[in-house]
Amino acid sequence: MSETIGFIGLGNMGQAMASSLLKAGYSLVVYNRTRSKAEALAAKGAQVANQPGEAAQPGGIVVSMVADDQALEAIVMSPGFLERLRPNGIHLSMSTVSPITSRKLAELHAKHGSIYLAAPAFGRPDAAAAAKLWICLAGAQAAKERVQPVLKALGQGIFDFGDDPGAANIVKLCGNFLIASAMEAMAEALSLAEKNGLDRSAVTGMLTQTLFSTPIYQNYGKMIAEKRHTPAGFQQKLGFKDVHLVIETAEQVTMPMPLASLLHDRLLAGIAKGRGEMDWSALSLDVLENAGLELPRS
Amino acid sequence: MSETIGFIGLGNMGQAMASSLLKAGYSLVVYNRTRSKAEALAAKGAQVANQPGEAAQPGGIVVSMVADDQALEAIVMSPGFLERLRPNGIHLSMSTVSPITSRKLAELHAKHGSIYLAAPAFGRPDAAAAAKLWICLAGAQAAKERVQPVLKALGQGIFDFGDDPGAANIVKLCGNFLIASAMEAMAEALSLAEKNGLDRSAVTGMLTQTLFSTPIYQNYGKMIAEKRHTPAGFQQKLGFKDVHLVIETAEQVTMPMPLASLLHDRLLAGIAKGRGEMDWSALSLDVLENAGLELPRS
Repeated sequence: MSETIGFIGLGNMGQAMASSLLKAGYSLVVYNRTRSKAEALAAKGAQVANQPGEAAQPGGIVVSMVADDQALEAIVMSPGFLERLRPNGIHLSMSTVSPITSRKLAELHAKHGSIYLAAPAFGRPDAAAAAKLWICLAGAQAAKERVQPVLKALGQGIFDFGDDPGAANIVKLCGNFLIASAMEAMAEALSLAEKNGLDRSAVTGMLTQTLFSTPIYQNYGKMIAEKRHTPAGFQQKLGFKDVHLVIETAEQVTMPMPLASLLHDRLLAGIAKGRGEMDWSALSLDVLENAGLELPRS
Repeated sequence: MSETIGFIGLGNMGQAMASSLLKAGYSLVVYNRTRSKAEALAAKGAQVANQPGEAAQPGGIVVSMVADDQALEAIVMSPGFLERLRPNGIHLSMSTVSPITSRKLAELHAKHGSIYLAAPAFGRPDAAAAAKLWICLAGAQAAKERVQPVLKALGQGIFDFGDDPGAANIVKLCGNFLIASAMEAMAEALSLAEKNGLDRSAVTGMLTQTLFSTPIYQNYGKMIAEKRHTPAGFQQKLGFKDVHLVIETAEQVTMPMPLASLLHDRLLAGIAKGRGEMDWSALSLDVLENAGLELPRS
């Protein structure tokens, strides 16, 4: 493969994904707001763009992986981006954003003669580097077929949720909501155990070897049991952003989600207490505090 | 093995457990409040007792598996029960009850010259029939060693949580709390997906093949996706009882558990609406109602 594709957004996830694409034989034109992060990929053979629009090729594929809805909209609205994708270029949008944003941007691309696909993914940077992401895909059928080789270079599984690009974002938000819910449940359970004189790690060990023997429970369970929330795999402030999107999406369709509301306040309290850049499993520290338990020395 | 042990409480779980003990070669003296349920085991060779006390043998082991704290206390206080266990008989209490009840009963047994062990177990009747339970064990060391062969005839794993019998009950309550939390999270997530036009089963399928590939999520996820909550594997009213015990235990150690409080109200609303005998995954119907979604025709 020597197809040239664009790649925008080189945070921890983007770096790892772009590396996987280079490894799979793609030529990349990369862009990042902070240029220094692009240099590491330049050393691996990527071409560095000065503007997001330069990463888009006429009729080509450009992947984006940015922090939030605002960053994604800024890319799409940047000079030349939509114009350069024409005709029939594909913007493969892999960030975790609101379904509302996805639907709006899909319309905008269509008006400009290009295609927007939503393809948010589950997995941390190490999974991205190993091409082991789980990818939710939605949007126009022909474009979804065209991006299969790109997605196969990034993920171990691709799940198609139909034509509405917002659908893929909803599944991604549902998954992150399930993860946050599992962490809240573990945080409350382990503090109850500790206050009753039990060993947090023994309880976690039992439950995650038996009923909950899956990496989400095992890995986050270990962090919560050990009260160890740095370095951050996924920052609490980003976790808050996702739960905020869940609630915003639920409001749009008039649906109360009391567990999401609980998580919203929990994560927001953690940020208020200066823990926004810790791993989002640090929501457990707020549970400890409210239980009058000892916090780890930082 | 031809050791005779007592077995009290022949509900769905107790029936299956008693059958496993018979299969392993134990002679059983069984008791159930409703005698008819004991007859099925009599056909398999068990002796039927007329009083709980008759199931206890001097210095022997008696297993109990009943619905709640009140039923367990009624057995222990029934005429002759504590007297007949003496000297050094073991009451292997496998019901899901409060740690407070376990600690109180352990003292009472000790005063009467016998030993109370807490050994609550995870698993449904089919797991009990296949000797595949996961068992949490706590209490006096020598007695824990003596009951190992009995527990091995029932479970695939035995986890020791020390001398305090209440500790095993806490781990069991933590596990059930985690299961209920996972169901609430799935119920909210799938209703959000449905209200956005997605197929509930497609979303569940994706999430439980990837991040949450464990039977708890797969089995309850399927029931919640399909809005199918009968027949009950575990009744909503029993689920409520367990969450109530979680909150009672948390109050005892002065610890707020907001997610447990949410589940408490959710399950109680389901009971108020006449769903107490449906499977506890029926908590999802309350989520559907609050979202203005269609309930399944019953």
